[in-house]
Amino acid sequence: MSERNRPLPSVGMVGGGQLARMTHQAGIALGVNFRVLAGSATDSAALVCADVQLGDDKSAADLLTFAKSCDVLTFDHEHVPDPVLRELEAAGATVRPSRDTLRYAQDKLRMRTRAEELGAPCPRWRAVTTLAQVETFARNSGWPVVLKAARGGYDGKGVWVVDSAEQAGVVVDRAAREQVPLLVEEQVAFTRELAVQVARSPYGQLAVYPVVETVQRDGICHEVVAPAPGLDEEKAMRAQELAIDLAHALDVVGMLAVELFETPEGVIVNELAMRPHNSGHWTIEGAHTSQFEQHLRAVLDLPLGSPAPTAPTTVMANVLGGTDPDVYGRYIHVMAKDPAVKVHFYGKQVRPGRKIGHVTVTGDDPTDLLARARDAAAYLRGEPQ
Amino acid sequence: MSERNRPLPSVGMVGGGQLARMTHQAGIALGVNFRVLAGSATDSAALVCADVQLGDDKSAADLLTFAKSCDVLTFDHEHVPDPVLRELEAAGATVRPSRDTLRYAQDKLRMRTRAEELGAPCPRWRAVTTLAQVETFARNSGWPVVLKAARGGYDGKGVWVVDSAEQAGVVVDRAAREQVPLLVEEQVAFTRELAVQVARSPYGQLAVYPVVETVQRDGICHEVVAPAPGLDEEKAMRAQELAIDLAHALDVVGMLAVELFETPEGVIVNELAMRPHNSGHWTIEGAHTSQFEQHLRAVLDLPLGSPAPTAPTTVMANVLGGTDPDVYGRYIHVMAKDPAVKVHFYGKQVRPGRKIGHVTVTGDDPTDLLARARDAAAYLRGEPQ
Repeated sequence: MSERNRPLPSVGMVGGGQLARMTHQAGIALGVNFRVLAGSATDSAALVCADVQLGDDKSAADLLTFAKSCDVLTFDHEHVPDPVLRELEAAGATVRPSRDTLRYAQDKLRMRTRAEELGAPCPRWRAVTTLAQVETFARNSGWPVVLKAARGGYDGKGVWVVDSAEQAGVVVDRAAREQVPLLVEEQVAFTRELAVQVARSPYGQLAVYPVVETVQRDGICHEVVAPAPGLDEEKAMRAQELAIDLAHALDVVGMLAVELFETPEGVIVNELAMRPHNSGHWTIEGAHTSQFEQHLRAVLDLPLGSPAPTAPTTVMANVLGGTDPDVYGRYIHVMAKDPAVKVHFYGKQVRPGRKIGHVTVTGDDPTDLLARARDAAAYLRGEPQ
Repeated sequence: MSERNRPLPSVGMVGGGQLARMTHQAGIALGVNFRVLAGSATDSAALVCADVQLGDDKSAADLLTFAKSCDVLTFDHEHVPDPVLRELEAAGATVRPSRDTLRYAQDKLRMRTRAEELGAPCPRWRAVTTLAQVETFARNSGWPVVLKAARGGYDGKGVWVVDSAEQAGVVVDRAAREQVPLLVEEQVAFTRELAVQVARSPYGQLAVYPVVETVQRDGICHEVVAPAPGLDEEKAMRAQELAIDLAHALDVVGMLAVELFETPEGVIVNELAMRPHNSGHWTIEGAHTSQFEQHLRAVLDLPLGSPAPTAPTTVMANVLGGTDPDVYGRYIHVMAKDPAVKVHFYGKQVRPGRKIGHVTVTGDDPTDLLARARDAAAYLRGEPQ
C-alpha cells in the first residue's frame, strides 16, 4: 500500500478492563482502529468495542494471533509474562512500551534499583528472603515496615504494612512457599500522596501533566485532585522532572504514571505504571488531551496533545461497588442532584469494593469540588448520606 | 426482574452514521447498552460499536426485530418512513421522539403550519404544486425564492434557490413527476445564521444550550462558533424561548436543533432537527454535557445534564473530504502544529465534499479560535495553505 493511501492504523490493547474501555472512547475520535484482547465477552472494554479478540493474555499463541492484525500492541495492565513479550518482539510485533521497558513496571526490585541509579529519591529499601533480613532492616527504619511482592503477589495483594516481626514472618513464609520475591521498604512519613503523568513517544516527544493529589484508602485510590492544592511550585517542578527523567531513562513509550509521597523535604518515588492510570482519569474532562488519547498518540508516534488543564481544578472520585447492586436507580438521583457531575460507568457487575466507575467535576474551588465528587461517589456506592 | 436489580437500559439508535458513532462514545461513559441498526458493517458507528444489527432502516421487519432488544428506540436521521414508525409504536416499542413528533421533522409543510400556529416567526411561505403558484408568490416576495421539498427530495437535494420562473419551472416539473411535495419560501435577507439546541425529557425537563453562529457554504455547515459572538442578549433569549416553546408544543423527546436566520429585527425559524445535530458537535468539548450524552439522558428519561459551556468560546469546523485520501498523513501535521486542537474522525472513506470529521478548539478569542479551526480543517481536507 502506498504511503499516500495508508489507512488509519490499528492499535491492539491487551486487556479488556476499564482502561481499554476508556481508550476505545478516545480511539473513536482519533478514527484509529482500536482492537482489544479480552479474557471474556463481558469484560468492560469487550462490551463496547467493535473489534474484540477473546483470548488469554498469558498465552503467546493468543497474543501472536492478536498481534498479526495490529500495527502496534499496547497494554491495559502489566501482567503479560516476560517470555511472551519476548516472543512477540521476536516475531516482529511492535510492542509499546517494549519488553525491556515493561520489566521495570513488572518487577519492583528492578524498578527500585534503576530509580536509585538515576538518583531518583526512593524510600530506603532492600530485597529480602528471610525474616532476619526484615528484622535487621526494621532495626534501622523502625516498625512498621512495608513488604512488597516484587512480582505478582498472592490473594490479589502485593503490599503489606507490618507492625512486628510476627506479622512480617507470616508474609515472608508465605512468599517463600509461593516463590514470590519480596522487598522491604521503610514506611515513609508522608504528608500526602501525589502522582504525576507524562507521555512519551518513540520520537522522544514528552508531554507532562500537572501534579495531582491522590487520596488512597486501604491501598485503593479514592480521590484525585488536579492540580494538587497548594503544592509548592518547586516540588511540583521536581516531581515533573522526575517523571520526565524516568520516562527517558526507562525508554517509556505511552503514558507513565509516577506515584509519589510528599514529605516536608520533597517528593519520593513510590510506584510506577506504564499505561493509563487511575490517577489520570480526571484528564477526560480536565485536560485538553485525556491520558487515553495521549497514550494512543504516543504509542502511534503521533505528535502529542496538549496536557494543559481545561479548568482551574478537577476532582475525580472512584465509585466502588457496595452491597446494593441497583446502581442505575441511584445514578438517576446523582444526576438530578448535580447536573454537572460527569458519571463514568465501566459496565461491571457490582461487587463490594470493586471499582465500577468514577465521577468527575470541574470548577474553581477544590473544597467544593471534592465535596461534590465524594457525595456523588458515596451515593452511587449506596452509602447512607 | 425486580426494580432493585434492574440492569442498565438498552438504547437502540436507528442509523449508523457519525451521530450514532458519537452517541456511542457518550453511552460508554453512561454505562448504558448502546445498540445500532446500521445499513452496512462499514458504517461510521458500526465500525466502533460492539452491538450492531445490520438492517434496512426502511424495513418494518428489521426495525421490529431491532426494537425487541431495546428499551428505547431513537434515531440518527429522520428517514424512517411514517408507516414503519406506526408499526413500531403499535407493537409496543418505545419510540423517542415519537412518530407524531417526528412527522414535524419529516414534513416541512407540517412543520411550517404548526410553527406559524405557535406564533414562531417563519419566512413567508406556501405550499405549491404549479409554476403559476410560485410566480404569484414571487410577485410579492421578489426573486430569488427558495423551493423546498416538503419530504424526501431528489438527487440528494431538497432545497433550491431559484432566480427566475424558468429555473423554478425545472424544479416544479421534476417534483411533480417524482411526486415530491413542494413549498416555496421567501429568501430571507439574514445577517447571519444561528442555531439553538434544547433537550427535553418525557418528564418534561428542559436543558437549553447557548445560541451558536453557524457558517454554511453550499448548504453544508462549515463552522460553528459557540456562543454566537456579539449576539444581542434579547435575541439570544428569544431564540432559546423559541426552541423551548417548539420542544414543548411538538412534544419533542431528545435533542431538538432549531436553525435560525438572524435579521436586524430578530430571529426567524429556518429548519428543525430532532436528534443530535452538526450545530452541536462543539458541545463534546465545549459544554459540561455533550449533545450526545444529553440525547441519551433525554430519551432514557434521566435527569438532564448541565448545558453550561466549559470555556468562554468554542469553535467547531467540519472536515470535508478532498481529492487526496491520505488523511492520516495530514492529521499528523495538524496535531503537531496545534496540540490543543481536538480531531474527530468518523471512519468514513474520503470522498470530495463528504463530511469525514470535525475539529474543535476551545478558548477565549473567537477570531483566534476560528482561524485555528479553519486552518486545521482546511489542512485535513488537503487544501493548499
